[in-house]
Amino acid sequence: MKHTSQQFEDDLTRLKDTLLLMGGMIESMLQETNQALLDNDSAAAFKIIERDKQLDQMEKKVDELAIQILALRQPTAIDLRFVTASMKICTDLERMGDSLVNICERITELAKFPPLKPYKDLPKMVKLTSVMITKALDAFVNQSLDLASDVLKSDDEIDELTSLIHRELIEMMKNDSNAVERAIKLMSISKYLERMADHATNISEQVIFMVKGLDIRHSGPPKSIPD
Amino acid sequence: MKHTSQQFEDDLTRLKDTLLLMGGMIESMLQETNQALLDNDSAAAFKIIERDKQLDQMEKKVDELAIQILALRQPTAIDLRFVTASMKICTDLERMGDSLVNICERITELAKFPPLKPYKDLPKMVKLTSVMITKALDAFVNQSLDLASDVLKSDDEIDELTSLIHRELIEMMKNDSNAVERAIKLMSISKYLERMADHATNISEQVIFMVKGLDIRHSGPPKSIPD
Repeated sequence: MKHTSQQFEDDLTRLKDTLLLMGGMIESMLQETNQALLDNDSAAAFKIIERDKQLDQMEKKVDELAIQILALRQPTAIDLRFVTASMKICTDLERMGDSLVNICERITELAKFPPLKPYKDLPKMVKLTSVMITKALDAFVNQSLDLASDVLKSDDEIDELTSLIHRELIEMMKNDSNAVERAIKLMSISKYLERMADHATNISEQVIFMVKGLDIRHSGPPKSIPD
Repeated sequence: MKHTSQQFEDDLTRLKDTLLLMGGMIESMLQETNQALLDNDSAAAFKIIERDKQLDQMEKKVDELAIQILALRQPTAIDLRFVTASMKICTDLERMGDSLVNICERITELAKFPPLKPYKDLPKMVKLTSVMITKALDAFVNQSLDLASDVLKSDDEIDELTSLIHRELIEMMKNDSNAVERAIKLMSISKYLERMADHATNISEQVIFMVKGLDIRHSGPPKSIPD
């Protein structure tokens, strides 16, 4: 028979693994979304939308597990912060899934028209967002303040890319009324990517809080995390 | 000297009161935002942006309080769900504040131009969003499944209003390239209002979970909550 402390460790591992599974799924959905956009492929986009349901179930599972641990194991200190951070992180991951669904819906609508332009900055944004998500999850697994801090610094780059894309699309709409509907959808895709990056930032803030017991939200990206 | 159970009750009350304070602040900020939009008043919009900092601090306070209660009081059953729901609800409230900041930034940019059109549907959307927020918070305070369920039903109305506004703005952009920049900003405002309504929906789902121990997320708005 297992010791209680071993069961406790197993519970925490299950919690972490479920979050990592969610994260891995989002990363692969994001790559597929990028490809669907480049290929103007609505069938692929519909498949990604379908996968989001699994993320919803995983979110529920994380919350159930976390509440069970809180009720039965009564964790304290960093274990307690790990459990509460997990409950916040699963919400961010699930909402990343919602953003992907929204992006894929726009892709299915765009697929009815010829592409407005060759996509250059959107794939760049996907790449950066994807790196932020990977780093945020690595930071979570390895309790790494450096990685978490890296993610916070990338947020400015995302904002710059978003406004670059917006300015270009606005010019296209001004010059050609036929561009309006497609440009709006592309703008919407960039906004949802920006939102995914925001969620990666939220996750990193939770990691920092979990590791240090320090709440750095709303104090701007720190140059270094105080010891 | 107070009994432990009395201290526990006091802690839960403080948690609830801080969330209600956040909610009340968002409701008043939303009304002021509506007025700033109608008056094309960027000074008013800047004032609202400034108030968001208080919301950020209150979010931290809720999380701190909740973690303290979990560590020291080790609540179970509905009390435990109340505490974990509070940690999720404060995130939704804080992100409503972020949406208001984004709306107000658009208002300051719009104030540089004459209004594109008399605003009719946006104030309607503000009103509906405001009702949803009030109901979600009332549902939380009174543990009312009826009110929470009402909020979920309003979400369709919000979606319809958003797409009505979008269709109208797209037509304006197609017909007049001078309308593009203002129309994009108005579209953005309606998207942020839609996001605020989503957060009110999230809060209602948390209330239902808290009261019934039932996770109804991602199963669509229920006609009635099962007993």
